[in-house]
Amino acid sequence: MKTPFVSDLTGDQTITAFFLVHAKEIRNTREGKPYLRLDLGDRTGNIESRMWTKFETQTQDISRDDFVKVEGRVELYRDKLQLSVLQIRKAKPEEIDLTDFLPHSKEDVEEMYAELLAYGESIQNPWLQKLVLGILTDNGISVRYKKAPAAKVMHHAYLGGLLEHVVGLCGLAKIVAGHYPELNLDLLLTVAILHDVGKLDELCYTRAIGYTTDGQLLGHIVMELETVIHAIAKIPGFPPELKTVVQHLLISHHGQYEFGSPKLPMIREALVFHYLDDLDSKMAAVRAALANDSGDEDWSAYSGALQRKFLRLDHFLQGPHSATEKAKPGG
Amino acid sequence: MKTPFVSDLTGDQTITAFFLVHAKEIRNTREGKPYLRLDLGDRTGNIESRMWTKFETQTQDISRDDFVKVEGRVELYRDKLQLSVLQIRKAKPEEIDLTDFLPHSKEDVEEMYAELLAYGESIQNPWLQKLVLGILTDNGISVRYKKAPAAKVMHHAYLGGLLEHVVGLCGLAKIVAGHYPELNLDLLLTVAILHDVGKLDELCYTRAIGYTTDGQLLGHIVMELETVIHAIAKIPGFPPELKTVVQHLLISHHGQYEFGSPKLPMIREALVFHYLDDLDSKMAAVRAALANDSGDEDWSAYSGALQRKFLRLDHFLQGPHSATEKAKPGG
Amino acid sequence: MKTPFVSDLTGDQTITAFFLVHAKEIRNTREGKPYLRLDLGDRTGNIESRMWTKFETQTQDISRDDFVKVEGRVELYRDKLQLSVLQIRKAKPEEIDLTDFLPHSKEDVEEMYAELLAYGESIQNPWLQKLVLGILTDNGISVRYKKAPAAKVMHHAYLGGLLEHVVGLCGLAKIVAGHYPELNLDLLLTVAILHDVGKLDELCYTRAIGYTTDGQLLGHIVMELETVIHAIAKIPGFPPELKTVVQHLLISHHGQYEFGSPKLPMIREALVFHYLDDLDSKMAAVRAALANDSGDEDWSAYSGALQRKFLRLDHFLQGPHSATEKAKPGG
Amino acid sequence: MKTPFVSDLTGDQTITAFFLVHAKEIRNTREGKPYLRLDLGDRTGNIESRMWTKFETQTQDISRDDFVKVEGRVELYRDKLQLSVLQIRKAKPEEIDLTDFLPHSKEDVEEMYAELLAYGESIQNPWLQKLVLGILTDNGISVRYKKAPAAKVMHHAYLGGLLEHVVGLCGLAKIVAGHYPELNLDLLLTVAILHDVGKLDELCYTRAIGYTTDGQLLGHIVMELETVIHAIAKIPGFPPELKTVVQHLLISHHGQYEFGSPKLPMIREALVFHYLDDLDSKMAAVRAALANDSGDEDWSAYSGALQRKFLRLDHFLQGPHSATEKAKPGG
Amino acid sequence: MKTPFVSDLTGDQTITAFFLVHAKEIRNTREGKPYLRLDLGDRTGNIESRMWTKFETQTQDISRDDFVKVEGRVELYRDKLQLSVLQIRKAKPEEIDLTDFLPHSKEDVEEMYAELLAYGESIQNPWLQKLVLGILTDNGISVRYKKAPAAKVMHHAYLGGLLEHVVGLCGLAKIVAGHYPELNLDLLLTVAILHDVGKLDELCYTRAIGYTTDGQLLGHIVMELETVIHAIAKIPGFPPELKTVVQHLLISHHGQYEFGSPKLPMIREALVFHYLDDLDSKMAAVRAALANDSGDEDWSAYSGALQRKFLRLDHFLQGPHSATEKAKPGG
Amino acid sequence: MKTPFVSDLTGDQTITAFFLVHAKEIRNTREGKPYLRLDLGDRTGNIESRMWTKFETQTQDISRDDFVKVEGRVELYRDKLQLSVLQIRKAKPEEIDLTDFLPHSKEDVEEMYAELLAYGESIQNPWLQKLVLGILTDNGISVRYKKAPAAKVMHHAYLGGLLEHVVGLCGLAKIVAGHYPELNLDLLLTVAILHDVGKLDELCYTRAIGYTTDGQLLGHIVMELETVIHAIAKIPGFPPELKTVVQHLLISHHGQYEFGSPKLPMIREALVFHYLDDLDSKMAAVRAALANDSGDEDWSAYSGALQRKFLRLDHFLQGPHSATEKAKPGG
Repeated sequence: MKTPFVSDLTGDQTITAFFLVHAKEIRNTREGKPYLRLDLGDRTGNIESRMWTKFETQTQDISRDDFVKVEGRVELYRDKLQLSVLQIRKAKPEEIDLTDFLPHSKEDVEEMYAELLAYGESIQNPWLQKLVLGILTDNGISVRYKKAPAAKVMHHAYLGGLLEHVVGLCGLAKIVAGHYPELNLDLLLTVAILHDVGKLDELCYTRAIGYTTDGQLLGHIVMELETVIHAIAKIPGFPPELKTVVQHLLISHHGQYEFGSPKLPMIREALVFHYLDDLDSKMAAVRAALANDSGDEDWSAYSGALQRKFLRLDHFLQGPHSATEKAKPGG
Repeated sequence: MKTPFVSDLTGDQTITAFFLVHAKEIRNTREGKPYLRLDLGDRTGNIESRMWTKFETQTQDISRDDFVKVEGRVELYRDKLQLSVLQIRKAKPEEIDLTDFLPHSKEDVEEMYAELLAYGESIQNPWLQKLVLGILTDNGISVRYKKAPAAKVMHHAYLGGLLEHVVGLCGLAKIVAGHYPELNLDLLLTVAILHDVGKLDELCYTRAIGYTTDGQLLGHIVMELETVIHAIAKIPGFPPELKTVVQHLLISHHGQYEFGSPKLPMIREALVFHYLDDLDSKMAAVRAALANDSGDEDWSAYSGALQRKFLRLDHFLQGPHSATEKAKPGG
Repeated sequence: MKTPFVSDLTGDQTITAFFLVHAKEIRNTREGKPYLRLDLGDRTGNIESRMWTKFETQTQDISRDDFVKVEGRVELYRDKLQLSVLQIRKAKPEEIDLTDFLPHSKEDVEEMYAELLAYGESIQNPWLQKLVLGILTDNGISVRYKKAPAAKVMHHAYLGGLLEHVVGLCGLAKIVAGHYPELNLDLLLTVAILHDVGKLDELCYTRAIGYTTDGQLLGHIVMELETVIHAIAKIPGFPPELKTVVQHLLISHHGQYEFGSPKLPMIREALVFHYLDDLDSKMAAVRAALANDSGDEDWSAYSGALQRKFLRLDHFLQGPHSATEKAKPGG
Repeated sequence: MKTPFVSDLTGDQTITAFFLVHAKEIRNTREGKPYLRLDLGDRTGNIESRMWTKFETQTQDISRDDFVKVEGRVELYRDKLQLSVLQIRKAKPEEIDLTDFLPHSKEDVEEMYAELLAYGESIQNPWLQKLVLGILTDNGISVRYKKAPAAKVMHHAYLGGLLEHVVGLCGLAKIVAGHYPELNLDLLLTVAILHDVGKLDELCYTRAIGYTTDGQLLGHIVMELETVIHAIAKIPGFPPELKTVVQHLLISHHGQYEFGSPKLPMIREALVFHYLDDLDSKMAAVRAALANDSGDEDWSAYSGALQRKFLRLDHFLQGPHSATEKAKPGG
Repeated sequence: MKTPFVSDLTGDQTITAFFLVHAKEIRNTREGKPYLRLDLGDRTGNIESRMWTKFETQTQDISRDDFVKVEGRVELYRDKLQLSVLQIRKAKPEEIDLTDFLPHSKEDVEEMYAELLAYGESIQNPWLQKLVLGILTDNGISVRYKKAPAAKVMHHAYLGGLLEHVVGLCGLAKIVAGHYPELNLDLLLTVAILHDVGKLDELCYTRAIGYTTDGQLLGHIVMELETVIHAIAKIPGFPPELKTVVQHLLISHHGQYEFGSPKLPMIREALVFHYLDDLDSKMAAVRAALANDSGDEDWSAYSGALQRKFLRLDHFLQGPHSATEKAKPGG
Repeated sequence: MKTPFVSDLTGDQTITAFFLVHAKEIRNTREGKPYLRLDLGDRTGNIESRMWTKFETQTQDISRDDFVKVEGRVELYRDKLQLSVLQIRKAKPEEIDLTDFLPHSKEDVEEMYAELLAYGESIQNPWLQKLVLGILTDNGISVRYKKAPAAKVMHHAYLGGLLEHVVGLCGLAKIVAGHYPELNLDLLLTVAILHDVGKLDELCYTRAIGYTTDGQLLGHIVMELETVIHAIAKIPGFPPELKTVVQHLLISHHGQYEFGSPKLPMIREALVFHYLDDLDSKMAAVRAALANDSGDEDWSAYSGALQRKFLRLDHFLQGPHSATEKAKPGG
């Protein structure tokens, strides 16, 4: 693990550290003297950086999305930290651990993946089991399944986040299917495991989390549909009706047209899965909102994903309340 | 249990049975001869009935919503059964078992209510436990809680349906709180038990399921708010913040303004409860839709509550398919 | 061509003709005498039919969706024609010409298909040409492409209607691409020819036009996506970016999420094609609305597809106007 | 006033009366015997009528929208009244008072029009006064202004209804302008008097209330805009800014795009007038809904214009309540 | 009244004045020297302030929402005024007049309250009069009723604004009830007086206008419902139907679900009151928008509450017009 | 053509050039020294400018929207160019070519106008031809028709843009009417030529493109309606039905209420014209979006008019892809 992280920096400090280059630009001071302006970052944040001398020679081979090793001085300028770069060079691949530069799940991805495989194996229907395990054990897929985030912003927006979301959903599906005996657990597990496989290609997540051009043009639902079509084509005898059911579960999982589902859920398990997926995503979004310091003791930051802020229940029940409250008559 | 039920009737049959009067009207034949037209029913359906003689004397004291004992002859007329009434009189209260006239839950209400009380007792927070048990053991409430349906049409629309829905929700809340450790089970159980208490007064359900005038003007959310305000007023020292939280959970449980919630869920448990309540209602609506014969082997009847029809999964997976399918090329 | 058609029937007439059975039911008269009630039809309409004797023996092997030969008498009853069936038997396959029973395009399908192939051959891009011709010359597809309607109700709802719509679109695309030189005609022709191929399976159209169960669960966009994926897989070297573009053109052609497109058009040709497809469909819907006698000389019948009625321009410009007009002061 | 009205008819009665022909059709009995079927009506309702003999000769010159004099016998058939026509002839113009055939305002139209003129004269701004009086004293307009209804269904849907609505609005505008001193009463009166002048041509109301073809194509806002443009063109020196203001008041008075206003109110008086117009229309719609017998003592009939039903306040406050209420526990 | 107000300040001026602290923060200059940054304000605006020396000792006991006495120098920096603080100390309660720090109504609150009481006494129905006067004369309520604003931003957003709004509504209700004789003035006055009582607790308005946490979780409709329930509970014999009516009037007064009314108005007076409340709020919002200098002579500033800008009618009618106009051809 | 344009400027350069004044303000430096701040621009962009001395005497007669001649020095300050003004004076009218200051069409307006007249002359219907040519040859109109932009931002937002849009639409109408023989080309050409005539007055475009006050209050649909009403009034015998049709085509051309059309298209040509107008506007918006450098090789800038960004098809098909793509695994 790299040291220090951006979040560790304080003013009046000289450091040597690795960063990812988010932006690089030559600028002029008012006096017309050129200098280099860089945005450097890691998984804990970004720091605005400037290099006043020698940057012409030292940064020729450095561009956006490169990893660099930097020696510099941290200073406080207008209430914000700034880095004055003294020395800089491109980092070598072996010096870099990618997980230092993108936020990642607190869970162990290998353990989670083993759990996921166990869920796949627990599927009773042989066709569905074969389909799910075929995909999960495809090396081209599993490597990325262990890395992918579940979203760019909305929820589980960190490396391993997709896996965390899906394993959570499998657990939720299992207990809910226990509660409602009419539910087919095999279908719920199948759609839980496959419903976001398209995100492996819709998102890119090697430097920062973003969308690929293909992802923007097609979306993960259409992308995973192709993955599943090919996987089923490799299983001779896969019943065509079951294929239709699996396809319907995938394309309807957003639950509404305006969220990109070309069909509304018309199978009981499709409806239930939509609820569970939505609930788990919202739970993660609430968790993220509450983890953010909003400057208001009673309330989380405003969450764009949820279109509202959430009460900090524990604080509210214990009082005293927010500054606005303090001002109440007799308060 | 009464015999026969409307659903047991066939043509060319003479019967003696009890019914509920849904409509009563004097009409004239084309020849100008007056006769009595009645709509008679029980929990299994209605039958159009006519009485040609003696009705002036026998039906003077009978009006809509009365129970009657009838002797008559069942006939098939234009493909529909009709009842020719020969004798009719008002039924005595002791002759009538209300559950013969309204559909009711298949579960035992006393057992369900005991289960509900056990959920109430399992609440750890002493204030919430006191609040919930105070309401559940209020005789004026418990008698009706065991009878009330959960809705007029949308879901659990039968006697005992509300109780069935709430007990189911408590179970669901318990396992979901087990899955997400950050959830406060006490709050989930409290809102599950109280969230529809207003329906005891919003709906009327002694003859047919409908809305009271008060229910239409106020709605169950406002009605139960008053019940809870009064119950909390009787518990000295109930923390005001906790009261606010309970009120928020109640008023936000429909999840959206357009469904009559004056506030969106802004507490984590409020959001989760909205999902669970919605899911359980939809599950019941799907169940009801699939129980309806639609004349199409692959599909349920169109469900107004769900705004769509649902696939009969088992039939579809086993084939052969609907008549429309049969017509496919090569089919 | 069969004679007579339903639209040819008048009262007081004895006929012998072929029909399709839409419904079959045994009923009782008021006197309790059973009789057979049938709905019989062809592409020009339906007629309610009854058989009073001998139906037990003659109709044992006849069920809904069968073709029958009937001898009977047409009568006017309560302002509607009715058929009293005297003799009935199942029709032999060789006695039936399907086009007598479903409305069909006035254009020659073989000529239209030749035109379509010519459009396919005119595509300059070799990959797209290979893709389009591969699909058009697939026998399993071409046979049905010549038959399929474009919709159940909305527009071109008759046999051959899909082909008529697509050929029209190709012509429109050609002239519009001539008008806007920045447009890529190859892409427009490709999406025009393939955009509704999924309807070959989404709809069923051997007896009446309806949806298959698969069609309801997946929709034609998802269905044709699979057709195209398989067709591309058979063309070695097909550029992956071009594949993405073709997929995007297909999935975005409904133009909006609420019409089932999981992505909005983000390529210039995708946007233009959406307009052309929408325009051609609406033109056909207006044509159909105006062809319907509405009983109002100035106005078409209300069109559900267009959510309005349309002015009969020629009539309005020549006057005199509708009855409502006649009532105008001084009119 | 004609006697009897449709609402006065009872079974077993022979009458001679004038009616408006709404429909006329020759039909056949089951036995093939032709008869004449007519829909006859006046402002109180319609009655289905049949003529069995002599209709060929007596009704040759009679068609829809004609007034007729009829001798016939009223009978009760299947719970509905029917008229057996014995003699029929076209009515002479002098025998007909139009107000017998369309519902009309209870107010005296001449008195109301005098009141309207007085409001026009009370306008202080000379340009606006000249504009308003010029229109109100135009004979082609005033004759129809005294007759026109305010709408086909929504509110004041009877002869003289438009005048009643406008005079009421002028009064309301006057008191509201008294309440808010910043309001310009002249503008409010001007828009009140002119805002629905286009309805004189949008609606037709000589036989039944309906829309003219022009009215459907243009709507009253566009139609009255032309009236006002022409009237202003006749007033030399009319300030162009004031003309723009008047035009804006007219085109924005529906308050929202979806109700056909091409601009939202952006002048204070435009906003206020929209509220007053909307309020007065809704008041009339509530009045009409409550005047309708709904069969429920607590509630009005469902109002399509208001998309809800309204409480009968007096009845509810006095109790006892609706039948549904009666069934409440302890009720 | 304090002097000077923020709006009185100009550059190059030494002042001694009282302010409210909106923010307080220690910052560093580029050279690393700490200084104090304060946001100071009163009811006329805010000024950014800095203190360069002695702030460690002088501001230890000062925090956000405290009142302070300040000696300092006003300077113009980058086109904005700034205050260099020389001396600062906490103000004593007796030195502060709260109305200097929050904008307030231009009307006399005591006079307005007397007017409100007179409206309450004018209610004829004894139950409603008792209810309204009971609440208005409750000391815990009246003190705050004289202070509360009607909203944070939308309309009447100043101390005493709620009272001004309500008294205005009572007057409006009286004249409108005079115009429509079918209206029950007692109900209109009751709902006018009580409809925003919940805002006394929903908003906080001792330092700045904001929402309390309770207010955000419950909203004023739910809050005032509890106030009214308790007040009615203290009036023995209050008719239950009348209570339902009052509750309905309160909960429906926002008129639409999306504005937080859990029920639509279903009583005539509820519908009318919604219109009057909405009209009076919009009038105030227009007034506020026009009072704002927008830099455009023809137009008000854009109003967020109204989602548009409003024409300055007087200016427009007198010309010359906005700069954009000037540029018109021939202009 | 003026030199240099703003887009030609670089740092460290002394220039003499003409500009349009967008803003003019006296400010103080921190030291309290006054200076002049100007926003100067031409059709290629704006530059922030300061004048440190002599501005009191040189700029007294200069105000916003004046043209000026400036001598000054261009400098780079904080990454942005700034102009230090040394000498400034008002420009003389003969020194200014307006087209240097507003962006304009690349097409020749006289040629385009001749083409437009030819389209007008090609109209077969004599009434429509007379109407169209009467308007096109009205000098007050033609001068401005050659200048007006088609919109402020959405599409064709440059001088001559309206003409370019309309001529394009006439061409499109002609080929589409060729494709659908049921279309009346005369009507399509008439509405194409007249549909935006109101924009001549709705927009102002002598200095910058904006809306006139009249334009904001009425909108171009209402404005051109008046133009057409007056033009028709000058053609004796113009058939009233044809006038209604023309008016309907104009008022319905936005296609939907929410875009300011008070009527939906109810004539076939009205519907088609709405599609063509919308398509041509969107094509221009896509063209503008793609012409904007977004910093992403695969994607255009986000287009507010289209609410999305568009793929750069050529770049995407040729690869390599955007930076985000580069980061794909194995990429």
